[in-house]
Amino acid sequence: MIILGLDPGLGTTGWGVIAAEGNRLSHIANGQVRTDAKEALSARLLALHDALHDLMLLHQPSGAAVEEVFVNTNAQSTLKLGQARGVILLVAARAGVEVGEYAPRLVKKAVVGTGAAEKVQVHAMVSRLLPGVKIAGADAADALAVAIAHAHHLASARRSVGR
Amino acid sequence: MIILGLDPGLGTTGWGVIAAEGNRLSHIANGQVRTDAKEALSARLLALHDALHDLMLLHQPSGAAVEEVFVNTNAQSTLKLGQARGVILLVAARAGVEVGEYAPRLVKKAVVGTGAAEKVQVHAMVSRLLPGVKIAGADAADALAVAIAHAHHLASARRSVGR
Repeated sequence: MIILGLDPGLGTTGWGVIAAEGNRLSHIANGQVRTDAKEALSARLLALHDALHDLMLLHQPSGAAVEEVFVNTNAQSTLKLGQARGVILLVAARAGVEVGEYAPRLVKKAVVGTGAAEKVQVHAMVSRLLPGVKIAGADAADALAVAIAHAHHLASARRSVGR
Repeated sequence: MIILGLDPGLGTTGWGVIAAEGNRLSHIANGQVRTDAKEALSARLLALHDALHDLMLLHQPSGAAVEEVFVNTNAQSTLKLGQARGVILLVAARAGVEVGEYAPRLVKKAVVGTGAAEKVQVHAMVSRLLPGVKIAGADAADALAVAIAHAHHLASARRSVGR
C-alpha cells in the first residue's frame, strides 16, 4: 500500500510517500511545501491546500499519517500550526484517506527502536530503511518517519489479526 | 453587497449573512454549525468545510470577516481553534472571497460605539441594527457583529475615497 506521511506547518510542510508490503518498505517521493510568509494567511492556506491536493491525486495514497502535535508554548505558533494542520487533515478527509496520528515517541520507536532516540538518529535510520532515498530536508525526513511508523503499525495490526 | 461574518470554532462556528448598502444594513440569515465531538477530527473538519461551502454557494457573499484570534492560554484549545479557522479561511479563499480580520475592540466599537463594550451590549445592538433578526445563539451573534464591523469598515473606506 501507498502511505503518505506529513509534517504539517504553515511555513513548511514536509511530505513523504512510501510503499509498504508487509515489513518491506520502499521510497517513492518526498519533498517540502513552502508558503510565502509575505502572502496573506488565506493565500498561504490555499497554496498548501493545492499542493497537498496535487500530491493526493498523483500518488493516490491509501493511508496517511501525521505526528500528534507537540503543543507549543508560543500560542501564536500553535495557532499557525493549527491552521495549516486543519487544511491538511481536510484535504485527506475530502480524498477519503484516513489519517493516523502517532505520538512522537511512537514514531521514534518505530524507526529507531527506542522512543528516546535523537532526531539525528531518526533521520539516519530513515535513510537506511529507504535505500536510495534523497531527503529534501528535515521536515521531509520527519514526514517519511511518520509514514514508516504508520506502515509499522499496519504490519503489526495484520500480524495480530493473523494469530 | 452581501457580507458573511464568521465566528470560527471546532465545536460551534457561528455565521451571519447581512446585506450592506452604504450605511444601511439588513439581515439575511444566521446560524451555527455544530460538529460532533465524538467524531474523528478529520470528519469534524470535513463537516465544517461542507457546511461553509454550502453557505458560500447559497449566499454568494462578496466579502467575509472574522475576528482576530484572542489566543487562548490553553494550547490544546488554541490548536483546535486553529484547525477550524484554517478550514474556514480555506473555504473562503477557494471561493475567491477575501476575509477581513478585525480586532475584538474594533468589532465592539463598530457595533456599540465603544471598544470597551460588554458582550451583552454587543448582542443587544446587533438586534437593534438588524431589525427583525432572530439570532441562533451567542456564536451567531458574534458572527453578525463582525459582519457589521466589516460593513462599517467598507462604508468608511468609501467615504474617505469620496472626499
